[in-house]
Amino acid sequence: MICPVIELAQQLIKRPSLSPHDEGCQELMIARLKAIGFTVEPMNFGDTQNFWAWRGQGSTLAFAGHTDVVPTGDEKNWDNPPFEPVIRDGMLYGRGAADMKGSLAAMLVAAERFVAANPDHQGRLAFLITSDEEASATHGTVKVVEALMARNERLDYCLVGEPSSTEQVGDVVKNGRRGSITANLRIHGVQGHVAYPHLADNPVHRAMPALNELVAIEWDQGNEFFPPTSMQIANVQAGTGSNNVIPGEMFVQFNFRFSTELTDTLIKQRVQELLDRHNLNYSIDWWLSGQPFLTARGALVDAVVNAVEHYAELTPQLLTTGGTSDGRFIAQMGAQVVELGPVNATIHKVNECVHAADLQLLSRMYQRIMEQLVA
Amino acid sequence: MICPVIELAQQLIKRPSLSPHDEGCQELMIARLKAIGFTVEPMNFGDTQNFWAWRGQGSTLAFAGHTDVVPTGDEKNWDNPPFEPVIRDGMLYGRGAADMKGSLAAMLVAAERFVAANPDHQGRLAFLITSDEEASATHGTVKVVEALMARNERLDYCLVGEPSSTEQVGDVVKNGRRGSITANLRIHGVQGHVAYPHLADNPVHRAMPALNELVAIEWDQGNEFFPPTSMQIANVQAGTGSNNVIPGEMFVQFNFRFSTELTDTLIKQRVQELLDRHNLNYSIDWWLSGQPFLTARGALVDAVVNAVEHYAELTPQLLTTGGTSDGRFIAQMGAQVVELGPVNATIHKVNECVHAADLQLLSRMYQRIMEQLVA
Repeated sequence: MICPVIELAQQLIKRPSLSPHDEGCQELMIARLKAIGFTVEPMNFGDTQNFWAWRGQGSTLAFAGHTDVVPTGDEKNWDNPPFEPVIRDGMLYGRGAADMKGSLAAMLVAAERFVAANPDHQGRLAFLITSDEEASATHGTVKVVEALMARNERLDYCLVGEPSSTEQVGDVVKNGRRGSITANLRIHGVQGHVAYPHLADNPVHRAMPALNELVAIEWDQGNEFFPPTSMQIANVQAGTGSNNVIPGEMFVQFNFRFSTELTDTLIKQRVQELLDRHNLNYSIDWWLSGQPFLTARGALVDAVVNAVEHYAELTPQLLTTGGTSDGRFIAQMGAQVVELGPVNATIHKVNECVHAADLQLLSRMYQRIMEQLVA
Repeated sequence: MICPVIELAQQLIKRPSLSPHDEGCQELMIARLKAIGFTVEPMNFGDTQNFWAWRGQGSTLAFAGHTDVVPTGDEKNWDNPPFEPVIRDGMLYGRGAADMKGSLAAMLVAAERFVAANPDHQGRLAFLITSDEEASATHGTVKVVEALMARNERLDYCLVGEPSSTEQVGDVVKNGRRGSITANLRIHGVQGHVAYPHLADNPVHRAMPALNELVAIEWDQGNEFFPPTSMQIANVQAGTGSNNVIPGEMFVQFNFRFSTELTDTLIKQRVQELLDRHNLNYSIDWWLSGQPFLTARGALVDAVVNAVEHYAELTPQLLTTGGTSDGRFIAQMGAQVVELGPVNATIHKVNECVHAADLQLLSRMYQRIMEQLVA
């Protein structure tokens, strides 16, 4: 007898839902959620299919995820066709197996089992599913969250199924993410001939003391959950290409990955104070791609740690490292947000795979989290 | 009766000798030099016509100049066609009038008058004429100097006819030029994702303390004849264009205009010591476009100052400012080198012009210099 989690994962993998396409994955999930009494609200924006589904009322636990996958690259490099899932030596292969159709299957089967055992659960169980996490992320979770906030929807806890684990399922749980903000700085000078420097004003020379100070700053020391804030200069450009022309402008682009010890406002203030103190003639614009968020110890983290300890027999590390995820949008609703999913070693690669047994464990963990928070 | 200097200047301007073309200018000069007993040796290299001519023997004074001119731009912007010289309100108009066909005419007529008055002069009078000063300067004076040095030709004094004057003819004499050297510096790092800075090594951050020190250096204080050495960063580039990639390399190009207080060797040593001290992983290549040279007080400067004081009734400033000239090549022969020519206010511009009377004065100055050094 095949496990229902693996069976559903395979059905999802068979649908080649290259971002932002869904290819019927959500239709399949919706049918099964409706069958167990969920109310389902499609929330499509632009080219992107999303849905919000709920069952029960009161304190709300939502499972969040995406049906879209990244491209396969040249399919010839795969041992098996990427959209024809296969189990070999206990591993389930296919594009999306780990990121994150395996998690979607685990969530859905967990909900089915949970509802069967708790038909009159006390809290509200919900799903927030998008088909645009891997690409632009503009018409997916961010739009759904805007719509939910506009009507004051309640969301207390959110479990994102992103593949958080590194070696064993549950060894790492993400309980936050760093913020990300980018500055585009232009230092203005006066162009001229290198033979007549007194008639020019070299913006590169002007900028050096300030930039030297900027790269030496310790922004914070991080905290229990966050590594120290990191600033990196990503792009620098000045000059006409000629060796006898003093440039008129210097462009510097730098990005912060920042902890909850800082805010974007504090970062801007500190950078601008530094530039002003050096008497630079400059212009700067900022692009905030995500605020940091943190879900400290509390009901959700406790439930997740308990579930992992119960099924994986290990205590998960709570980390906030790595890039951004849709969790940053959901955290804006005031929800506690945690990411727990399978091992991420092969995501975005050829021969993406996941231990079949891990998906079964993961589904049990998800069910145990439901039981602790909304039973 | 028209002045022979103005007449010859007009004949030269009529020949549209856009660099590196000569268009018969040298043929005209050669015929007149042969007529007064010069031995003339054409020294053509590549696309460039040059000649070396001499009369007499012993201590040698050479007049140096170029027959080529810079482009005219749109001829419609000229009040008169640029290759149809005209005198209006005492000004001789035409491309090359000031840079430097006027000087060539003044030199040649000066030589004719000098030889007529001193048929058995004691020293050697010479001409070094090229048609490639304004463009690449690769097949002109530099090649002639190489050939002359290879056969140990003597050159004691050289008067370059470049337009050195700023408001009145003779108000500025150039008795040297700064050197010019360019460094192409590449600072090597390790490319990576901005979210994982510990796995990368940002070359921009690495470079900042060193570059900040570099731009703050006082290289020298100049001397009696030279302004302080100036270093200018002309070009800077780092980054892939993406705001989430730490660059793998930083490129910095900087140029020195340096006085005789420094040498290219000292500059290289000092820069490389600084980079090494900052433990940078870098590569650097250098391009020396000209050594500095200086002709201090001595027979040539004294003769030039005397000639200017006699005819212009002013004491010239001795300066080493501005760009480079062919003087840098001739100085390598061990000659004293001085530049004296007409007012440079209109060179390389539309309606290039020169006071006709200045060319007459200049010819008299040149003749008086000959009389002091090789009579």
